[in-house]
Amino acid sequence: MTAFSYDALPGRVVFGAGVARTGLLHEVDLLGARRILLIASGSERELVDRLCASFADRVTATFSGVRPHVPVEVAEQARAAAADADLVLSVGGGSTTGTAKAVALTTNLPIIAVPTTYAGSEVTPVWGLTDHGRKTTGTDPRVLPRTVLYDPELTVSLPAELSVASGLNAMAHCVEAFWAPRRNPISSAVAAEGIRHLVAGLAPISDTPADIAARTDLLLGAYLAGSAFAVAGSGLHHKICHVLGGAFDLPHARTHAIVLPYVLAYNAPNAPAAADRISAALGQSDPIAGLRELGEKLGVPAGLRALGVSEADIVAVTDDIRAIAPADNPTPVTAAGVRAILHAAWAGTDPTRPTP
Amino acid sequence: MTAFSYDALPGRVVFGAGVARTGLLHEVDLLGARRILLIASGSERELVDRLCASFADRVTATFSGVRPHVPVEVAEQARAAAADADLVLSVGGGSTTGTAKAVALTTNLPIIAVPTTYAGSEVTPVWGLTDHGRKTTGTDPRVLPRTVLYDPELTVSLPAELSVASGLNAMAHCVEAFWAPRRNPISSAVAAEGIRHLVAGLAPISDTPADIAARTDLLLGAYLAGSAFAVAGSGLHHKICHVLGGAFDLPHARTHAIVLPYVLAYNAPNAPAAADRISAALGQSDPIAGLRELGEKLGVPAGLRALGVSEADIVAVTDDIRAIAPADNPTPVTAAGVRAILHAAWAGTDPTRPTP
Repeated sequence: MTAFSYDALPGRVVFGAGVARTGLLHEVDLLGARRILLIASGSERELVDRLCASFADRVTATFSGVRPHVPVEVAEQARAAAADADLVLSVGGGSTTGTAKAVALTTNLPIIAVPTTYAGSEVTPVWGLTDHGRKTTGTDPRVLPRTVLYDPELTVSLPAELSVASGLNAMAHCVEAFWAPRRNPISSAVAAEGIRHLVAGLAPISDTPADIAARTDLLLGAYLAGSAFAVAGSGLHHKICHVLGGAFDLPHARTHAIVLPYVLAYNAPNAPAAADRISAALGQSDPIAGLRELGEKLGVPAGLRALGVSEADIVAVTDDIRAIAPADNPTPVTAAGVRAILHAAWAGTDPTRPTP
Repeated sequence: MTAFSYDALPGRVVFGAGVARTGLLHEVDLLGARRILLIASGSERELVDRLCASFADRVTATFSGVRPHVPVEVAEQARAAAADADLVLSVGGGSTTGTAKAVALTTNLPIIAVPTTYAGSEVTPVWGLTDHGRKTTGTDPRVLPRTVLYDPELTVSLPAELSVASGLNAMAHCVEAFWAPRRNPISSAVAAEGIRHLVAGLAPISDTPADIAARTDLLLGAYLAGSAFAVAGSGLHHKICHVLGGAFDLPHARTHAIVLPYVLAYNAPNAPAAADRISAALGQSDPIAGLRELGEKLGVPAGLRALGVSEADIVAVTDDIRAIAPADNPTPVTAAGVRAILHAAWAGTDPTRPTP
């Protein structure tokens, strides 16, 4: 029987080609901001000069020392730069948004986020900081951006390979949202919608990276994936990829894309409604084969072996995965089950025929 | 190209059979409430005594003078009763929730709503008050309940006919969400999910009104319909029904159920994606015929003539409808168009063959 609790997240989203050019000043005004800390990496310099031209006098501080995974010393510098600010404006990818969140976490300043990649983190209340290579994450409503401006035009220059990688990460979040711990009918509906747009955007992006319709679908899909994840959380698939990524320094997106069909195959027998929804959203009669085909088209290798990791190493992390696996995964996360997933995902064999 | 802005509404929803019995105290504690104004009509007396038994000492005031459409004098009395309160707890249908909203509007008190019908208003920031029969409505974030406990068990005793009527109203909100003024990909996904659950719940409810699975689907559908409406707003269909209801005192739910397929038929040629989504959610190849069949099964008459209104009277309100029709309705709202809808809906003829 259906039972859930759902804490709906507030926030304003403005989406559309050109909205960063035409709508940013209005959003700044809506929040009554007079002293803005602008966070953007040096590579976004030209873009932010253009976007902020109409209210440049209100940008009273800038911070460009953005680094991946938000080292604590970077967070401290950004917070110092925020001393007199009444708004944090972040323009950039996940690391830039993450730096803005680190500022909001201690200052409670509102954030306007203008994403330039398909990170999705701009609609989640999750923050992350690293201290000497050790990552701490947490959830706090203060770090959730007040306003997000999604402008597909800003993502046109994102290289196709990176776009595909981000899109596949987003896809993993959408698929996993169907059995993640805090799933509910709204997060599932949002995830299904996300899959639809990601499929529509991923297919043409390699051939025509400047296709604004494809960019729109990808950005919309990334937004929906972030929204579904923000509510539902992540499940077995992300735990597996987290452990694999940490242990073997594997490329994030390709690891996700390879592993996802195997986890879907593992869970599908005990989550038939989820499999049906994923299947319908993918527009494929078989969701597992559908995900594999999509990956293949996008140049994802069939198995983790192609990423240079050994079979023995892979299977050695079974216990690490079980230790953090969600208790309510549709299929119980047994040692034999995890080993079967890892074996098959390493070899790249048919996900529906695991080799324990 | 996709463009929208979306102000996501905050709020906590706890859903499940039995949650009012088992979870209400916890929700009261989460909000730290010590002095509760309980709003419930006299007919809910036994229910509220049971639900509030574990924190009866914290219920420092009660108000039971609930009346439909919240007359201003009722609102004033309820506000007076809230003088020392730190929480408003409403248990009941739309009028009870509406009274709680009237209190929150001027006092800014948080609301916990426990709906006992399929109103859906508990997840919207819309309030309404009537003064000498004249209704004023508005939107204010202060009236949005902080927490909603949806317990299908509380709706089991709702008569089947009333349940069907409420369910059909919810259906109209879901269908209309696809072309309502503030629609966006999230409200559309939520509306589609709502249609799915409403269909699943409406079909068995007449035969087995105590079926808790059907009650769960109906309540979930009503919640999703309210959520979609809260974001997207309402469109041409609701404007037509509003004018018809006001002019001829027609029964709300049956009017909606009769008119909806005609508005869908009017808009579908210019909103093919919406029609496809509605169709898929209904599980029918033709969404217009699907809605008509559903209505027929549930005893909805084919045309408005069965409600005792004359053809000449109906067509006379064409201009009133056009005056309030949304500017961005998929099909332009011409006088001939509205007349064709009204003619056909009055006669109960095939919606896809309007008779201008």
